[in-house]
Amino acid sequence: MDIPKTMKAAVLFDLGDLRITEVPVPVLAPGEALIKVNSVAICGSDPAIIAKGWKGYPKLGEFIPGQAFSGVVAAIAPDVFEFSVGDRVAVEPHKGCGRCDNCLRGFYTTCLNYGNYELGHRHYGFSTNGAYADFAACHVNTLHKLPDSISFEEGALLTGVGTVMYGYERIGWVGAGETVVVTGPGAIGLISAHVAKILGAGRVILTGTREERLAVGRELGVDITINVREENLVDAIMDLTNGVGADMVVECTGQSAPAAEVLDFIRKNGRISYNGIYHDPVTLQLDKIVQWNLLITGPKAEGRLNLARAIPLMADGRMNLKPLITHTFSLDEINTAFDTFTGRVGGAIKVIVQP
Amino acid sequence: MDIPKTMKAAVLFDLGDLRITEVPVPVLAPGEALIKVNSVAICGSDPAIIAKGWKGYPKLGEFIPGQAFSGVVAAIAPDVFEFSVGDRVAVEPHKGCGRCDNCLRGFYTTCLNYGNYELGHRHYGFSTNGAYADFAACHVNTLHKLPDSISFEEGALLTGVGTVMYGYERIGWVGAGETVVVTGPGAIGLISAHVAKILGAGRVILTGTREERLAVGRELGVDITINVREENLVDAIMDLTNGVGADMVVECTGQSAPAAEVLDFIRKNGRISYNGIYHDPVTLQLDKIVQWNLLITGPKAEGRLNLARAIPLMADGRMNLKPLITHTFSLDEINTAFDTFTGRVGGAIKVIVQP
Amino acid sequence: MDIPKTMKAAVLFDLGDLRITEVPVPVLAPGEALIKVNSVAICGSDPAIIAKGWKGYPKLGEFIPGQAFSGVVAAIAPDVFEFSVGDRVAVEPHKGCGRCDNCLRGFYTTCLNYGNYELGHRHYGFSTNGAYADFAACHVNTLHKLPDSISFEEGALLTGVGTVMYGYERIGWVGAGETVVVTGPGAIGLISAHVAKILGAGRVILTGTREERLAVGRELGVDITINVREENLVDAIMDLTNGVGADMVVECTGQSAPAAEVLDFIRKNGRISYNGIYHDPVTLQLDKIVQWNLLITGPKAEGRLNLARAIPLMADGRMNLKPLITHTFSLDEINTAFDTFTGRVGGAIKVIVQP
Amino acid sequence: MDIPKTMKAAVLFDLGDLRITEVPVPVLAPGEALIKVNSVAICGSDPAIIAKGWKGYPKLGEFIPGQAFSGVVAAIAPDVFEFSVGDRVAVEPHKGCGRCDNCLRGFYTTCLNYGNYELGHRHYGFSTNGAYADFAACHVNTLHKLPDSISFEEGALLTGVGTVMYGYERIGWVGAGETVVVTGPGAIGLISAHVAKILGAGRVILTGTREERLAVGRELGVDITINVREENLVDAIMDLTNGVGADMVVECTGQSAPAAEVLDFIRKNGRISYNGIYHDPVTLQLDKIVQWNLLITGPKAEGRLNLARAIPLMADGRMNLKPLITHTFSLDEINTAFDTFTGRVGGAIKVIVQP
Repeated sequence: MDIPKTMKAAVLFDLGDLRITEVPVPVLAPGEALIKVNSVAICGSDPAIIAKGWKGYPKLGEFIPGQAFSGVVAAIAPDVFEFSVGDRVAVEPHKGCGRCDNCLRGFYTTCLNYGNYELGHRHYGFSTNGAYADFAACHVNTLHKLPDSISFEEGALLTGVGTVMYGYERIGWVGAGETVVVTGPGAIGLISAHVAKILGAGRVILTGTREERLAVGRELGVDITINVREENLVDAIMDLTNGVGADMVVECTGQSAPAAEVLDFIRKNGRISYNGIYHDPVTLQLDKIVQWNLLITGPKAEGRLNLARAIPLMADGRMNLKPLITHTFSLDEINTAFDTFTGRVGGAIKVIVQP
Repeated sequence: MDIPKTMKAAVLFDLGDLRITEVPVPVLAPGEALIKVNSVAICGSDPAIIAKGWKGYPKLGEFIPGQAFSGVVAAIAPDVFEFSVGDRVAVEPHKGCGRCDNCLRGFYTTCLNYGNYELGHRHYGFSTNGAYADFAACHVNTLHKLPDSISFEEGALLTGVGTVMYGYERIGWVGAGETVVVTGPGAIGLISAHVAKILGAGRVILTGTREERLAVGRELGVDITINVREENLVDAIMDLTNGVGADMVVECTGQSAPAAEVLDFIRKNGRISYNGIYHDPVTLQLDKIVQWNLLITGPKAEGRLNLARAIPLMADGRMNLKPLITHTFSLDEINTAFDTFTGRVGGAIKVIVQP
Repeated sequence: MDIPKTMKAAVLFDLGDLRITEVPVPVLAPGEALIKVNSVAICGSDPAIIAKGWKGYPKLGEFIPGQAFSGVVAAIAPDVFEFSVGDRVAVEPHKGCGRCDNCLRGFYTTCLNYGNYELGHRHYGFSTNGAYADFAACHVNTLHKLPDSISFEEGALLTGVGTVMYGYERIGWVGAGETVVVTGPGAIGLISAHVAKILGAGRVILTGTREERLAVGRELGVDITINVREENLVDAIMDLTNGVGADMVVECTGQSAPAAEVLDFIRKNGRISYNGIYHDPVTLQLDKIVQWNLLITGPKAEGRLNLARAIPLMADGRMNLKPLITHTFSLDEINTAFDTFTGRVGGAIKVIVQP
Repeated sequence: MDIPKTMKAAVLFDLGDLRITEVPVPVLAPGEALIKVNSVAICGSDPAIIAKGWKGYPKLGEFIPGQAFSGVVAAIAPDVFEFSVGDRVAVEPHKGCGRCDNCLRGFYTTCLNYGNYELGHRHYGFSTNGAYADFAACHVNTLHKLPDSISFEEGALLTGVGTVMYGYERIGWVGAGETVVVTGPGAIGLISAHVAKILGAGRVILTGTREERLAVGRELGVDITINVREENLVDAIMDLTNGVGADMVVECTGQSAPAAEVLDFIRKNGRISYNGIYHDPVTLQLDKIVQWNLLITGPKAEGRLNLARAIPLMADGRMNLKPLITHTFSLDEINTAFDTFTGRVGGAIKVIVQP
């Protein structure tokens, strides 16, 4: 592949000021491949980073956001043997330092040297440059081959899927046949519900307030939807479970009141994965954790190679996230893309930017 | 329901001498329900029990075998509140004593008071009477409601499914997206392969020697079949996994040589569930367990309520074991049923007896 | 042993009105033994039960509280083979129904039939009669033999130890060499700290406000104590862990502010066991659970036979809780005993009542 | 520290031909520190490597064996910030590539790029040079600070301790209060027994044939020793466990017959860690794994930073391996050291070489 010297990129010049400009194509460090970016999925944290920055983000005027993406290998560093030019790949945004305790034990999304570029840590689109550009330099640790049966657009959603799956891994996987309640039909909630079913949940119940989103859930295999504007959530779950409560709850609203309410419909010995972004503190009846003997976790991103786990499931069609992809924009239209995403214009769920 | 005083049953009068006769309908103990048996699946251990007995089996002339069955609740003891007359149920054969260390920790299939009837242990068709009869007395701990969408015939297979699932639970569940190799396309192998896919395996590879059984595997969702008469198994798995080996192997041949060969195509850090009945000793390169850092288990029956876990998966059609049910006989034909099963007459896989 | 017809007992005649009276000696049900009570440890929940009752507690005028105790087997029901008259025993207060999903999976302290006596559930001193009496009828599931090297007084503390241990089991045991912070030097905190060390923690740090209690902690093997009145807790832990945070935190204050503060000094990927009784809601920075990828639980009592696990550790002297036993009273002095306990009179930690 | 250009080292010139010679001091790669070696413990695999080599070992004439060692940091590469010159350290022999699936999930001792130096894998004394020399170049991932309370000699045993601990971690840690049987009182067996007790085992039973080794076991805290020449092992364990069997067995003989016999005294639902080096195949009653519902593993070396977990336990004196250190030799005496070790001359257990 012929690599140009410069490329088009969306650069953050100031907080809130993201502009398309021409920048040098990144130079590869050892272990890296140059990815010709095809599709970038806008994630919930992207607008926040653009508006407010992120601890240790690259210099304004140079910072290229974009974390969840797919593309094609355009070049490889001399020591790279795992990938070849032309390979279709999905990219995960986290690379650990590889030398702290957490990385050495496999927990690279909670690397203790977060943001330390010299020691080898990378977080594309957060602490290092990301993917809203023609090209991105990515370490092999973050690359996963995409079979032809997965489109680039769906491949860009795999980071989200990996995060959801990591939550399930961390809480002991989905138990076969269990009743899983997913609260909040945002993109992560919809993926959580879809994945629960694929991993062997018995019944998946999705809750929310927007009927059209609940309908997407049903399209993705959800068994039962509950509109919490119309039904009492706790009563409904208790009715559906003979008064026992849900075996597992995956909280995806990111809101404080629903996050607390989970304790009212989880079963004794149940498990909770908090998958939202909780901007505000949450007031819990903590005693319930003890008395009900609960297990609780929250997944920090697509840890322990869970992005890779998702690929065969998507490749053979069991996982189908096409209903989530509502809009596609070119890189030049990136600000429109963000407006569409944040304003949920036209029922936007996942918005793809294609450089 | 009108309960007669006597019933038809297949009684073991001597080793190898199973005959239909008229016996009293069982009297219910506390916590028990009387089940009008509908369908009993012949299991691999049934012919062995009939031929050779089982440690602590009931008196010859009184012993009714039959372990995997479904039916309808015909009567309940006064203290039973969980079930009502008329309920359709699947029955699991093990009830623990409920007072030994293993039972109290939830491992009732390895009850330390196995065979001690007075202390409350039951193993239908092994240490206590089973289901080749019009009626069977079953403790509520062993009963699971069958939704209408599950036929009695399929319900009788749930004990086998529960055993397979317990193997998966004990080894840490199927990891999402993993490559699972199942060796041996007998009934347990076919179920293991089918269930692996339902629980989120990436690729399921089934191995065997009989082409028609491998074809059933493909019908049940297996991705790749390997006829070990035609291909070198180890080479084939290594090719399919880029030289890494299988993430998990479920050994279902029950044969010594294949059981040992598993260590040649498992990956470093892989997991093995031995699901067969191993009549003969197996000579292993044990050092591989250490050097490859493997985890190994074998499921003792349908432990920890895994039969119940299977029900919602079968109820909504994800699990479909109809292709396994090749023959159905009446109770009067029980010896023909056994001959059909053991001789694999007409391609018999699972043979159902219906009193 | 000669069993009298009546016995002395502390009966709750009205909320707050606990009086010594003469009552019938309990009659044994199947599976039960009659225990001649030797020592009962007053627990934190006892005064609350006496003052306010408990959901489903026995009738006033008949209810005998007392949950954590030891004694000698005085008689056994005909079906009891595990124990003999004269056996010294410690008693755990929970017996599950043995037939609900949670019990069958080994989680009997969160029995789904809590309080249902007919179905076999027992919670001595809560939903059924307890031990502030000469005798108590106890099911064999709740009895554990005490070797001679354990005094009855210490044996009465084993329920507390079992609860602490169950927290460790549920969160994946104490990792060898880990830094464990225990907040709050009450009885449960002191036991948590002592047990952490016995189970292989590297360093155990105990925090609190009362210097004399921290001194008891040091006597029990705590490596470092932090008086939170004198030091900034978060700074101190971060200093001690090179800025990484504690591997595990065992929260034992039961107070809302400290329960929330735990998230400020836990490491990324850390584990938390909430062991307190949290009367008030707790406002957490829930997002930390996700971003830090934490695992959280709370132990519901002495689950999964953890009381039994503690016995060999106490028997050989590794576990030594004598420093916690500050006062001993006769049954007649029970109200003085309670006043001593609740008022922490004379530095009371654990107060023993001996019928 | 003043670093010379050359150093004394034990170089393998031909299989079986280990000689002291002068070689260049190693040059540091990024991430490495130069260690002035103090103490190297001869391990069971060392004589085998010297006699027969190892898959992918360095060129004869250049290969310096030595895997388990301690020393002082003499120099650091420019990117090393975790250690300073003068730091006392223990070294673990494995460094993973950091980019294969196993490494990224924290299983670096089973790195899929084993022996690939260019990709970053290291196995000191096996696939890369080791420690029988004045200096060794070691990656920071393999270094662990030694507090002053740990001698260099004991520090050189930490790799063995880490291996034993990793076995416990992989099998779910030692359950509190459990009865652990360790077979074989070699160095690994003695360490396994000592560590079991430190991690909370109830009773530790050590088996063997040599009375003097069993005596060392008792010195290390073993509760019960069984001389299998004098007692029937299976009977003895069954007697000690009321016929139930051992909760966990740690097999350390490396011999085939004892490795198979483990299945005769493990309890139903027990766990087995195979810690030996099994040169010969082992013929197992594999069916017992299924019927007894066992969990089995073997630890591949000091995985998941278990060497680091051991340090605080040794630092405060709970772990005391001094009784194992029977002999110390200078580097010049290395061949005598090996003869002493392999011939068990003078009751040799662990033999230390000090360059």
